[in-house]
Amino acid sequence: MRFDIITVLPGLLESPFAHSILQRAQNKGIAEIVVHSLRDYATNKQKSVDDYPYGGGSGMVMSIEPFARCITALKNEREYDEVIFMSPDGQTLNQSIANELSGLGNIMILCGHYKGIDQRIRDLFVTRELSIGDYVLSGGELPAAVLVDAIVRLIPGVLNDETSALSDSFQGELLDAPIYTRPADWNGHKVPDVLLSGHEAKINDWRHEQALARTQARRPDLLED
Amino acid sequence: MRFDIITVLPGLLESPFAHSILQRAQNKGIAEIVVHSLRDYATNKQKSVDDYPYGGGSGMVMSIEPFARCITALKNEREYDEVIFMSPDGQTLNQSIANELSGLGNIMILCGHYKGIDQRIRDLFVTRELSIGDYVLSGGELPAAVLVDAIVRLIPGVLNDETSALSDSFQGELLDAPIYTRPADWNGHKVPDVLLSGHEAKINDWRHEQALARTQARRPDLLED
Repeated sequence: MRFDIITVLPGLLESPFAHSILQRAQNKGIAEIVVHSLRDYATNKQKSVDDYPYGGGSGMVMSIEPFARCITALKNEREYDEVIFMSPDGQTLNQSIANELSGLGNIMILCGHYKGIDQRIRDLFVTRELSIGDYVLSGGELPAAVLVDAIVRLIPGVLNDETSALSDSFQGELLDAPIYTRPADWNGHKVPDVLLSGHEAKINDWRHEQALARTQARRPDLLED
Repeated sequence: MRFDIITVLPGLLESPFAHSILQRAQNKGIAEIVVHSLRDYATNKQKSVDDYPYGGGSGMVMSIEPFARCITALKNEREYDEVIFMSPDGQTLNQSIANELSGLGNIMILCGHYKGIDQRIRDLFVTRELSIGDYVLSGGELPAAVLVDAIVRLIPGVLNDETSALSDSFQGELLDAPIYTRPADWNGHKVPDVLLSGHEAKINDWRHEQALARTQARRPDLLED
């Protein structure tokens, strides 16, 4: 699976893609993540990629021309299943969308910055708009990293333990039960007895009860369907 | 405002905090962001910070002792308004929570990794659990960066244009209207005439109509209150 990310701040994405599961997936050849500097596609001498908004108002707007040139150059090299724009007014990302996208081949991701991007980029090139949540960020770079992380860890072969992704929160519609590791007693704060019992059926029952109780307490909306 | 972030992957957070608005806020002395390596607080020779889960199951669990040592060391230096654990089963972050947190002084953020953290860390040290959305990620590092970005840009003096944060999506309960910049005609795709009219009242009316229409089409839930 290949990701092409277009951004005005390529350096911001260096360390998130060079660690942990995203690094491992790239080293294994399972995922290819290529970050493109939008400024390389600017046409004027100043290498500017933004301009004042028509109709007035604060903030700068990213221009159509550099995006159009970069997107067109990439599309000339391969076909893309989706051209995704990360935007607070896009569809809210959830695990089911991540699952769906993890089955695709090539994804292009556009990162907005400043006040936003010229609407014509969205109208003419973007196939899908995604938001990572109802809050405003400095740009689309962190959301792009979040999206890639959510997707890549679902590709078979990326996680060491094949069962790990399947037993995560949200994959089973319930939040996780509490988990514990050694020591069994930390300054008088003890691990629940049942987890030390070695009785697998009782442990599974306890975990299901705890997961259900936590979901009811914290996220009753997940139980509504 | 100060953020102390505890993580097993400090390198992952290097570039997000060294660019754009987060860099500017630190250079101006408005925000201090300190990343702590959890491994520095490990007590055994192998510097291990995780162990097998009690009761069996896949994945590793982060141990209480290194977190307890790091949190205690930090608390000995200053008081914290919140000790936040980034977790998919926490309260879902939104703009109103970001606004609230931007008024605080010192925030500690714990990043989970692997299968999760020993429940006793959450019970004994954490004052608030936040999720950035209903999807599973490799760890709490990207969520921590997202949270810090969402908060820091709201602190007065961080954004160049004081009005920018106030006119963002979600601050006004409506999504943004479409925005455009030069050229007025790009390969036959034109900017709406009203934005070129210079008639401020008409432009404001158009923007409000467009914002309302977009919100109704994409996020009718935002209009329900």
